Amino acid sequence: MMSMCMMAMTASAFTMPQSASFRKPTFLSMSDDSVKLGIIGGGTVGGGIVEILQSKESYLQQLTGKTTQVKTICVRDKSKPRDFQIPEGCSITEDTSSVLNDDDIDIVVEVMGGTTLAKDVIFTALSNRKHVVTANKALIAECLPEIEAHITSVNEGSSSPVQFQYEAAVCGGIPIINSLQSDYPGDQITMIAGIINGCTNFMLTGMDRDGLSYDEALSQASDLGYAEADPTLDVGGFDARSKLKILMRLAYGLDVDEEDISCRGIQELTKDDYEYAKKLGGTIKLLGVAESLGDGKISGFVSPCYVSNADSLSSVNDATNAVEISSKNLERTTYIGQGAGRFPTANSCVNDIAAIAKGDTTESPFNPPSEGAKFVQQYDSVFYLRLKYRDQVGITRECGEICEKNGVSIHSILQNPVTSKSNAAFVIITERVSNTAMKKVVADLEGLDWMKGPAFCMPVLRPDWM
Amino acid sequence: MMSMCMMAMTASAFTMPQSASFRKPTFLSMSDDSVKLGIIGGGTVGGGIVEILQSKESYLQQLTGKTTQVKTICVRDKSKPRDFQIPEGCSITEDTSSVLNDDDIDIVVEVMGGTTLAKDVIFTALSNRKHVVTANKALIAECLPEIEAHITSVNEGSSSPVQFQYEAAVCGGIPIINSLQSDYPGDQITMIAGIINGCTNFMLTGMDRDGLSYDEALSQASDLGYAEADPTLDVGGFDARSKLKILMRLAYGLDVDEEDISCRGIQELTKDDYEYAKKLGGTIKLLGVAESLGDGKISGFVSPCYVSNADSLSSVNDATNAVEISSKNLERTTYIGQGAGRFPTANSCVNDIAAIAKGDTTESPFNPPSEGAKFVQQYDSVFYLRLKYRDQVGITRECGEICEKNGVSIHSILQNPVTSKSNAAFVIITERVSNTAMKKVVADLEGLDWMKGPAFCMPVLRPDWM
Repeated sequence: MMSMCMMAMTASAFTMPQSASFRKPTFLSMSDDSVKLGIIGGGTVGGGIVEILQSKESYLQQLTGKTTQVKTICVRDKSKPRDFQIPEGCSITEDTSSVLNDDDIDIVVEVMGGTTLAKDVIFTALSNRKHVVTANKALIAECLPEIEAHITSVNEGSSSPVQFQYEAAVCGGIPIINSLQSDYPGDQITMIAGIINGCTNFMLTGMDRDGLSYDEALSQASDLGYAEADPTLDVGGFDARSKLKILMRLAYGLDVDEEDISCRGIQELTKDDYEYAKKLGGTIKLLGVAESLGDGKISGFVSPCYVSNADSLSSVNDATNAVEISSKNLERTTYIGQGAGRFPTANSCVNDIAAIAKGDTTESPFNPPSEGAKFVQQYDSVFYLRLKYRDQVGITRECGEICEKNGVSIHSILQNPVTSKSNAAFVIITERVSNTAMKKVVADLEGLDWMKGPAFCMPVLRPDWM
Repeated sequence: MMSMCMMAMTASAFTMPQSASFRKPTFLSMSDDSVKLGIIGGGTVGGGIVEILQSKESYLQQLTGKTTQVKTICVRDKSKPRDFQIPEGCSITEDTSSVLNDDDIDIVVEVMGGTTLAKDVIFTALSNRKHVVTANKALIAECLPEIEAHITSVNEGSSSPVQFQYEAAVCGGIPIINSLQSDYPGDQITMIAGIINGCTNFMLTGMDRDGLSYDEALSQASDLGYAEADPTLDVGGFDARSKLKILMRLAYGLDVDEEDISCRGIQELTKDDYEYAKKLGGTIKLLGVAESLGDGKISGFVSPCYVSNADSLSSVNDATNAVEISSKNLERTTYIGQGAGRFPTANSCVNDIAAIAKGDTTESPFNPPSEGAKFVQQYDSVFYLRLKYRDQVGITRECGEICEKNGVSIHSILQNPVTSKSNAAFVIITERVSNTAMKKVVADLEGLDWMKGPAFCMPVLRPDWM
């Protein structure tokens, strides 16, 4: 995946000059008839940006009223061959200060990835009053509030504020950042639900449609370059959680510590779960979900979820991503598209460059939370609970007792005909209950002797039977 | 539907001063700390705008750095009660010149509908150097190039150009105008396919899911206010065609005479078609489709289309709209949301107001076509052809001969068991052929004596068997 390639570039081979940080701000130099770019990172995305800028040169000039010129590209290793044509007059350097200290450069495009040197680059560029465009999801998830505070201080009292854009950081081919910044100023977002990790969606599609096992699906995803070398970031839900955190910031103006967002990956899913999901008329997707619960309470989690076939998200397959925004004015709007890849990501960077060149502004782009908004761990949902068990009498009664004790109402129980008495599975669908009550139910069930392995519990997105 | 309510207001009860047009342009008066609005139209959408501006007042101030004040609302009949609270200090008038000639007013919001008086209002407002926000689909479809030429002349040599925004004109709850203006400057759009009429999608959903007849579905749509008084604009595809024309302008920079876009409504669809669509693994949707065919050729049509269940558009049901944009960089991005209604439409107007107040610009927002781009009537597609017939021998041979004669290859033939020899139906799926060849096949078939009624032919969107 794209984010992978960029992560791999985190190494410290770029030279960061000691003296580059926090130069005296100078007046922004963007001249009336040209915009000069310094691109830091000459890999997949950097090359895509150069190619798009070349192929759309005359249109971008018409749109922005300015020529867009790539003046300098900073790479880790100048001697490495590039898979794109270096623009005429563009110099290649290994020294970030050639970009950051060049008064001629108006916009710094950070596509090197990583969160250490990239952070220095972005902070220094902003200090030096350069606009910044970045595709760096990890950095945005980790440092957005810090970057914003820095921008505020840099822009204080300036009549030509520097701009900071990061459309490419979440779902490369879906303009979700732009939409959250531009399409909701008059609205109130009530819920976000997104398929925001391409690798796991590819795997789950294979498990559902082609009946693949988890290991077969992961192996296919790795072969196609969708999975990271250590796929835990994908399959454990952590990549999705970073993106959810950014979306929550944009939708609710809320900064949440990533660790506080509960995160369940797809590792526990089995073929049984897909069989039961089909029976229920739906499928299973790994979703990042955030919801405004009223009174300023915002919940959020990453988890596999049961999704009905009537829902648009159910037909978002393979490595495709989707984000569904529910809001007071618009009811529900869904954006489906490519999550990563050279050209989707580069395209988003070019949009950001064009918007800055046009003079569009991005200050205060957040939908603010209600007064006293806070992140809460507890939320209500209908849950799907799958239990593997050794068949014996009294199981249904014991399940019923445990649910009742914890205040969990059962909506229905599904059980395929038992083919092996020593290893069978059944599924409980609850009414709308709290996740904390469900945790207690799971803990109590797991203490029983007929249980085989852990129980698997996931939320049901908008049950169509309710 | 929303567009209906607005159409109904076309009447000439608003007063248009004879002297209002083409006043000497004055310097744009938008002061640093406030934006003053004049809203023309106090109906469903106008009221929604006022309500949103009130409820989000402090956020909009934070976002734009300015207070937003509704100074004047112009209505047809002052004595009519309003379903919204008139803002403090806002005057109500029946005279458009109270808005158009008020130097204090920065932005004119046209939500009266119609294409005669509304056109005058917009032209005069622009002449008087006011920014304009409109929700008027019919006017944009009819006059966008003329409006743009007027804006160019008004803005000539000005350092603070007036802005013109119309997000609400197409698919109220889907930010498709903003997206086409902002997200594709580095891209090339290859195809647009959209479910862009809520009434017909509601009807087709009922016919597919609930097995309703055409008449039952239309009656339900009328009862719920989705259909216009004369539903021909909806069911005949003409409303969708107006929207497709606007989308083609934004995607390809091409002005097409609406009459040149072939337009087939949903009136010929029968239960047979839904049965066959289900057999094929899909459903039927009324789509507006435009495609770049290479060499600058752009095709476009409105027609029912077979859509596979694997496609996101297949699960867009009821009055929901969707637009799918295929492009070189992003592959395919799909936007799904509400097509109309008070708050979706008003929300789009408020986004436009906020963007103007922020100082964002909208000049040259089109993805230009390649050199020598032109609209063409001919396109290639896989087609679904349904024939009703009186059973007799030789039918398959005759169909085969006619297809062969016109160069149409047959992919497959579907036929349910014949229950009535005098009134049966079968379906031919073609290979990828030209629409003109299909027209000849249909004409030839309709001359045969075993045919019962006209043949029904529709394109297949991206056949999943190819």
